[in-house]
Amino acid sequence: MEHTASALAATAAERDRAGGTALTERQLLRDSGLLTLAVPRAYGGQEADWPLILRIVRRLAAADSSLAHLVGFQHLQVASVLLFGSPVQHDRYLGATVSQKWFWGNAVNARDTRLSVRRTASGYELNGVKSFCSGASDSDLLNVSVALGPEPTERIFAVVPTRRSGITVNDDWDNLGQRQTDSGSVRFDRVEVAAGEVLGPPGAASSARASLRNLIGQLVLTEIYLGNAQGALAEAIGYVREQAEPWPGAGVARAQDDGLLQLRAGELWGQLRAATALADEALRDFQRAWDLGGALDFVQRGQLAMSIAAARLQAGRTALHVTAQIFELMGARATTRRHGFDRYWRNVRVHTLHDPLDQRQKGLGRWLLTGQAPEPYGYG
Amino acid sequence: MEHTASALAATAAERDRAGGTALTERQLLRDSGLLTLAVPRAYGGQEADWPLILRIVRRLAAADSSLAHLVGFQHLQVASVLLFGSPVQHDRYLGATVSQKWFWGNAVNARDTRLSVRRTASGYELNGVKSFCSGASDSDLLNVSVALGPEPTERIFAVVPTRRSGITVNDDWDNLGQRQTDSGSVRFDRVEVAAGEVLGPPGAASSARASLRNLIGQLVLTEIYLGNAQGALAEAIGYVREQAEPWPGAGVARAQDDGLLQLRAGELWGQLRAATALADEALRDFQRAWDLGGALDFVQRGQLAMSIAAARLQAGRTALHVTAQIFELMGARATTRRHGFDRYWRNVRVHTLHDPLDQRQKGLGRWLLTGQAPEPYGYG
Amino acid sequence: MEHTASALAATAAERDRAGGTALTERQLLRDSGLLTLAVPRAYGGQEADWPLILRIVRRLAAADSSLAHLVGFQHLQVASVLLFGSPVQHDRYLGATVSQKWFWGNAVNARDTRLSVRRTASGYELNGVKSFCSGASDSDLLNVSVALGPEPTERIFAVVPTRRSGITVNDDWDNLGQRQTDSGSVRFDRVEVAAGEVLGPPGAASSARASLRNLIGQLVLTEIYLGNAQGALAEAIGYVREQAEPWPGAGVARAQDDGLLQLRAGELWGQLRAATALADEALRDFQRAWDLGGALDFVQRGQLAMSIAAARLQAGRTALHVTAQIFELMGARATTRRHGFDRYWRNVRVHTLHDPLDQRQKGLGRWLLTGQAPEPYGYG
Amino acid sequence: MEHTASALAATAAERDRAGGTALTERQLLRDSGLLTLAVPRAYGGQEADWPLILRIVRRLAAADSSLAHLVGFQHLQVASVLLFGSPVQHDRYLGATVSQKWFWGNAVNARDTRLSVRRTASGYELNGVKSFCSGASDSDLLNVSVALGPEPTERIFAVVPTRRSGITVNDDWDNLGQRQTDSGSVRFDRVEVAAGEVLGPPGAASSARASLRNLIGQLVLTEIYLGNAQGALAEAIGYVREQAEPWPGAGVARAQDDGLLQLRAGELWGQLRAATALADEALRDFQRAWDLGGALDFVQRGQLAMSIAAARLQAGRTALHVTAQIFELMGARATTRRHGFDRYWRNVRVHTLHDPLDQRQKGLGRWLLTGQAPEPYGYG
Repeated sequence: MEHTASALAATAAERDRAGGTALTERQLLRDSGLLTLAVPRAYGGQEADWPLILRIVRRLAAADSSLAHLVGFQHLQVASVLLFGSPVQHDRYLGATVSQKWFWGNAVNARDTRLSVRRTASGYELNGVKSFCSGASDSDLLNVSVALGPEPTERIFAVVPTRRSGITVNDDWDNLGQRQTDSGSVRFDRVEVAAGEVLGPPGAASSARASLRNLIGQLVLTEIYLGNAQGALAEAIGYVREQAEPWPGAGVARAQDDGLLQLRAGELWGQLRAATALADEALRDFQRAWDLGGALDFVQRGQLAMSIAAARLQAGRTALHVTAQIFELMGARATTRRHGFDRYWRNVRVHTLHDPLDQRQKGLGRWLLTGQAPEPYGYG
Repeated sequence: MEHTASALAATAAERDRAGGTALTERQLLRDSGLLTLAVPRAYGGQEADWPLILRIVRRLAAADSSLAHLVGFQHLQVASVLLFGSPVQHDRYLGATVSQKWFWGNAVNARDTRLSVRRTASGYELNGVKSFCSGASDSDLLNVSVALGPEPTERIFAVVPTRRSGITVNDDWDNLGQRQTDSGSVRFDRVEVAAGEVLGPPGAASSARASLRNLIGQLVLTEIYLGNAQGALAEAIGYVREQAEPWPGAGVARAQDDGLLQLRAGELWGQLRAATALADEALRDFQRAWDLGGALDFVQRGQLAMSIAAARLQAGRTALHVTAQIFELMGARATTRRHGFDRYWRNVRVHTLHDPLDQRQKGLGRWLLTGQAPEPYGYG
Repeated sequence: MEHTASALAATAAERDRAGGTALTERQLLRDSGLLTLAVPRAYGGQEADWPLILRIVRRLAAADSSLAHLVGFQHLQVASVLLFGSPVQHDRYLGATVSQKWFWGNAVNARDTRLSVRRTASGYELNGVKSFCSGASDSDLLNVSVALGPEPTERIFAVVPTRRSGITVNDDWDNLGQRQTDSGSVRFDRVEVAAGEVLGPPGAASSARASLRNLIGQLVLTEIYLGNAQGALAEAIGYVREQAEPWPGAGVARAQDDGLLQLRAGELWGQLRAATALADEALRDFQRAWDLGGALDFVQRGQLAMSIAAARLQAGRTALHVTAQIFELMGARATTRRHGFDRYWRNVRVHTLHDPLDQRQKGLGRWLLTGQAPEPYGYG
Repeated sequence: MEHTASALAATAAERDRAGGTALTERQLLRDSGLLTLAVPRAYGGQEADWPLILRIVRRLAAADSSLAHLVGFQHLQVASVLLFGSPVQHDRYLGATVSQKWFWGNAVNARDTRLSVRRTASGYELNGVKSFCSGASDSDLLNVSVALGPEPTERIFAVVPTRRSGITVNDDWDNLGQRQTDSGSVRFDRVEVAAGEVLGPPGAASSARASLRNLIGQLVLTEIYLGNAQGALAEAIGYVREQAEPWPGAGVARAQDDGLLQLRAGELWGQLRAATALADEALRDFQRAWDLGGALDFVQRGQLAMSIAAARLQAGRTALHVTAQIFELMGARATTRRHGFDRYWRNVRVHTLHDPLDQRQKGLGRWLLTGQAPEPYGYG
């Protein structure tokens, strides 16, 4: 894994400038074995526990936030199959994820209601567009979600080969951060979905356990933030040691002996450690809930959701701060575009908007003050 | 322990207003068994591990920060005997701590240089004054520290009965917070100290292990901050639920349904959880180092010191914020002095000044940027 | 004025500990001429402009926040007469304010609905209780507000001599800050109010100009915050220069040469200057609106309210920060209760809760995003 | 001026992506008359006062931060001639600035010591390189600064035509922000400078008045920060009103009615207003000092420097916050690169590193605690 991370880091700044699909690096990930960490051993995967899987996402994000995101979301799609799918679907999709080195993309953005579905004799037909379809380019399969009715529980998840007739993955992602996540739009023109391609039973909205999917998504985001912050801080410390010149008025021979820089570095490190410790706690909480299997109830699910919400909140706020403040350590010369040191902030800036942190913070407070947990099938 | 905490909480606000020595509550602690948690089983104690001991301090601090401080410092003096004392001294002081229900006080403030020592035929003679002698009133024994020379390593720690001739514990602690810690001054007039009362060998400055004492002190501070913040936040949440009226313009029937209050509560809880998770990590790190015994080296000690410094820094900053912000949740009516809700902030405000947090933050940064750990016998 | 401020400052810490009514100091204010600053020259007053009046409140608050509050609210009651009263009432109340050295108190807290009013043959009868009646003790006249109906515009303001039969000023203010503002409760038992004692016409809810009263109240709060912060920072700087010992590890001979303390001092001063500059701008805006007289319209009033809301918000947040952080400059020895250095924070903490800053901040945002100004007769 | 600002704004996002020299827009500025605002009327200029000049820089920065920087630095070079130059030099350079529509660049970065100077028979010869030469591309004249000796007072400023033999303006500025300021390097190969081209007498280090030059530079930075923050916030408010969709869980029909967005908007606006009010105060302070002419003494200069340092500090910190936080208002869809909304943050991020804000904050504190003002010829 360290080897993969290093390989990604070597070209991350350059690829951030270029944007687009990272075909070479996606192949590197296919070959690395990191895409099958969440697949059970019964299907040829590694069946790693979630804390390990997500700390690997964190480590990759320190090197390359876009590719780490794709890896994290790969595990999220695998988890969707595990949590929503029937035994037959497990057999069909999980084994091939290993043997065919499948890379999963998604088209599940619940806020984009432009994708419509209608029932057909043999299943469903999809028409319309979904935005924010991370990883769809160069993917083998797509996890597609669409609402059959107005309730959050009426949402279905289908598995569709990306090359299926009628699917067009648009190359229209050009954002200020997370630039190689290919989070553009996917167009569906009369795309047929067989009944057996819709995950279930149990399906998406059947149980507290099934609703763990959303929480994996939140944990992936959390780890992306932490990884960026760690990458940024490590880079800044290295820069201060090796390249920064001491400030004339600071009265020191080396930049690293400047008390004001030390004060800043201590602040950032302390905050990042606290956010990381909280995330580690949330990872342990998640694994405990996962291990409960079907015994997990909605009260436990609600408490877990709050643990994870707190972790994501602290990670997000902290990473925004750390990735912006590293420049106070490094100084003006570190702003040359060649270094690409602003990509950490841009990545975190984009990704912390996945769903509003303020809403999540308010949700935490609502739970504390009223005991009400967030709705498990929505953004909770 | 919960019983003791509840008993302390019931009168904490009132005793905060009164100040002075909490004789009744000190006796309660003597009888509770909480004073012997750190004493090895071989001497009749409970030999609890440090994470448990310090989380008990945290819990007590949520109820009564002053008494929690005295309990924490009791364990610190016990640890001094364990770390610095000879086997003979272990026998003499640890068993009696249990059997005699000794309450330990201290006179070790290194910054106060008004206490002088001179060698005598049979040992030493102490003259002068020490300030900030927490827990000296009503104590049985005092841990006294005094410098024999200018180096931090030349400091000796002696164990002296508080009632020894020449010792006067002044009732001169009247501070804005931590009001019942009796952290006033102690006067020494020709106080004789036998050679065997000076802890050692190994003594204070012999090893990385011996230097763990300072770190216990830092952990006690950390837990006091967290306990105050937890107590404050719990009190505020209860107040919002049960007593606060909704703001007219908020458009809600109950205060707890006010989105702005929920947002605030979520912020405070998230930050406090992160600081707590980091402290828990530091507690585990400390126990690992403790368990290494004499094998602990100075590099490991330095890393541990940084872990604990980060924990104290985050706990301190967070607790200052949380204890000040609870009033935004509760509103104007919560400011009546009868509630005493400001005592949490006053306690944290006083205690975070034990030694400057900014200096500790800078020390963290120095370690990150230069690799240099803080001096282990000073304030590190 | 400097003489009065110095006289108040000399005993402020001691009186903060004592609480209660500051009879001596109230007499000092009566004799100082500072109570008639807002009275027009035609009635024997000084007719100072509002920026001057309110900067005097700021200066007094640096010395003694409680008494400054009483002075500020004196001007607020005078303004009530000016804005709401008829010419006859101007003659009756303003001249006597000067000649009789009247000190005005109030019983206007709109959130306390326990005071009821009924119409009588000759006017009204009041029954019930009002809380938060700042300055009622030792006052000559009370400004009393009570709702005739559910709308904010149905609130009447009456002027009643404090010694009138049926009025009991309770000595029940014992709060954590603003301890000598006598902001306790006033009981009304069948208190008769003549029709001519109800201010008007124009009355309270007649015009944009009349609604300036609330804004004076907000400006008084703003200046109280700034004064406390300035007093606190000045005290801290003096303490560092004259009493603080340098931190051993800082490597400096004098505390004031410690770079970390300089960094802190610079931070606090910069923030306080910005908040002060914004308040000065709001004062100028207010005077311009005042000078418009009856020509002021509700759009202008709304913009002015936003200017003042921003000023109060920044002043409040900044003062909470500055008054808490001065201890980082001064260190542990500054926490002795004798100094009373925590009273600045306690004063600001209490007073920033007058009405929720978060609600005001949200109101600012609403205006920016939707163009809707706050309701002028409520807390806007 | 509004016309020019609008013209710049129309293409600013696109040119930010492109980088490089904005030849069209530089010509627009030449033709706008904005380059001669600081030139006295005696030489055909507008002789605007400094508050007006600098508020125009602020306004331009809201539209296009790079071009605003070039305009601000134009005035700085004009001020250099005014403050350092002899009457003969005034005649030579100021009139032609108007008649020839000169655009001034600079090569004055004091921290880059790679430019050497040696005396020749007729003046000086320059050899070496200067970095951070804002506006050198497409400029007519360069203000070049080089040290004759180790003291800050030994620095000379020369005026050299950009096209002079031996001067190469490198196209090597490719930074993460301020992308069209052409702040790359300039190479000098045996560049001859006549004695009369060195500004003086009075020259650079002769008086408190001459040392006002640095403060203009600091004010330009301050206004660039404020302009970016104002531009960013205005853009965000417009976006919320016109493009943002309400968050599903917020329970509102329009995004602008979301209380959490209103709270955020209020926070940002309040902070920005405070920073702006402080800058306006500094502008007035500066003009007063300027108007003193030769009567300005070093004590007054020191106080002014502190006023300006505080303004820059608050503007910088606030602008970093505002430009990062606008995305909380706008949400995920606002991160598409087409909008270029991150350019405000990138511009401020780069420019706040001109010289370290922390050092300036410390300098403020040093002045408060010790009375010592910063060195007037260095970065003070």
